[in-house]
Amino acid sequence: MREEQNKRKQEILTIAARIFRQKGYNATSMNDLAKECGLFKGSLYHYFKNKEEILQEVIQPYFEYLLPHLEAIDSSKMTPTKKLRMSLEIQMRAIEANRDAVSVALREDRAVGNPYREEYIAKRNRLEDHLVAILEEGIEKGMFRKLDIRMMSKAILGMCNWATVWYSSSGRLSSKAIADHFTDLAISGLKNKHLSRLD
Amino acid sequence: MREEQNKRKQEILTIAARIFRQKGYNATSMNDLAKECGLFKGSLYHYFKNKEEILQEVIQPYFEYLLPHLEAIDSSKMTPTKKLRMSLEIQMRAIEANRDAVSVALREDRAVGNPYREEYIAKRNRLEDHLVAILEEGIEKGMFRKLDIRMMSKAILGMCNWATVWYSSSGRLSSKAIADHFTDLAISGLKNKHLSRLD
Repeated sequence: MREEQNKRKQEILTIAARIFRQKGYNATSMNDLAKECGLFKGSLYHYFKNKEEILQEVIQPYFEYLLPHLEAIDSSKMTPTKKLRMSLEIQMRAIEANRDAVSVALREDRAVGNPYREEYIAKRNRLEDHLVAILEEGIEKGMFRKLDIRMMSKAILGMCNWATVWYSSSGRLSSKAIADHFTDLAISGLKNKHLSRLD
Repeated sequence: MREEQNKRKQEILTIAARIFRQKGYNATSMNDLAKECGLFKGSLYHYFKNKEEILQEVIQPYFEYLLPHLEAIDSSKMTPTKKLRMSLEIQMRAIEANRDAVSVALREDRAVGNPYREEYIAKRNRLEDHLVAILEEGIEKGMFRKLDIRMMSKAILGMCNWATVWYSSSGRLSSKAIADHFTDLAISGLKNKHLSRLD
């Protein structure tokens, strides 16, 4: 019985992630959600206290997946190059696994209110700090050029995060292949200076 | 009198761009907008037929700014490297000029309905096609490596478009400086192969 309930809850969260992404969290009412799930509104409250709680449960699995992976990468003995490669693979794999939820997690930030907001911001910043740390290590070890670390982190984050806009599970490439292309561009760019500004 | 009206209309559009970005288009009512503008709802309809028209007038200036610039770049005799540099400068300058409006133009695509939708998609695709053409030319001329052109375009678009999320006019760097950093990473990455996958 409990298993049945959990399964139903997961189904609701899958639908909620899709509706939040398509329509926007603020524009989606509990009524809309109930209708999409084929439930009465009252039944929805049987599973979730309120809409904020649904948003949290849509977003949390992304961070629960991502953060332990980032920590494992950070504390590993891999080279910065290899760390960056792994990090992009993980980020793209998260989008592949649940594009709707990652879109909501990354793009509906305005919707996350108190008491969840502080923790949310901390988790999101964790991703950028992780990239900054890899770049710092790479520069320190002479493997990457001395570039503006904040800007390079934002550039690399942008490559990955923008995929929430265009990624399709029926697309030409797997998340692994996309991450490979992005890593190639990023690492080649971080390592090699194109000297001439003239051509 | 007409001048006064135009000025007021522009003020409304500035406010609308901000509210649409912060709250989402779907979640913003004409009532919300009127309140933020210090107007009665009826007065808002004096300037705009409906909310769809406001969205269009928020989005259009971005494309009206961007597209002629892209066409000038495309038809110029500049090298692909220089074209890419110019293109990123223009894209970042658009964000600097009106981050709210560009955010709405790029991230509220779900909100653009008929009869505007087809033209909107065409204009948005124009930006990616422009990058694809530059990369094709660069590869053809032996200036860039033979990379996956679609993926490289999406990576570069992602760098720029994600700036709608983090760019702040009070930030450390100008749009020109940000574009310089992104161009450095992209061009160096497009030109130079980092051969080893081992380090």
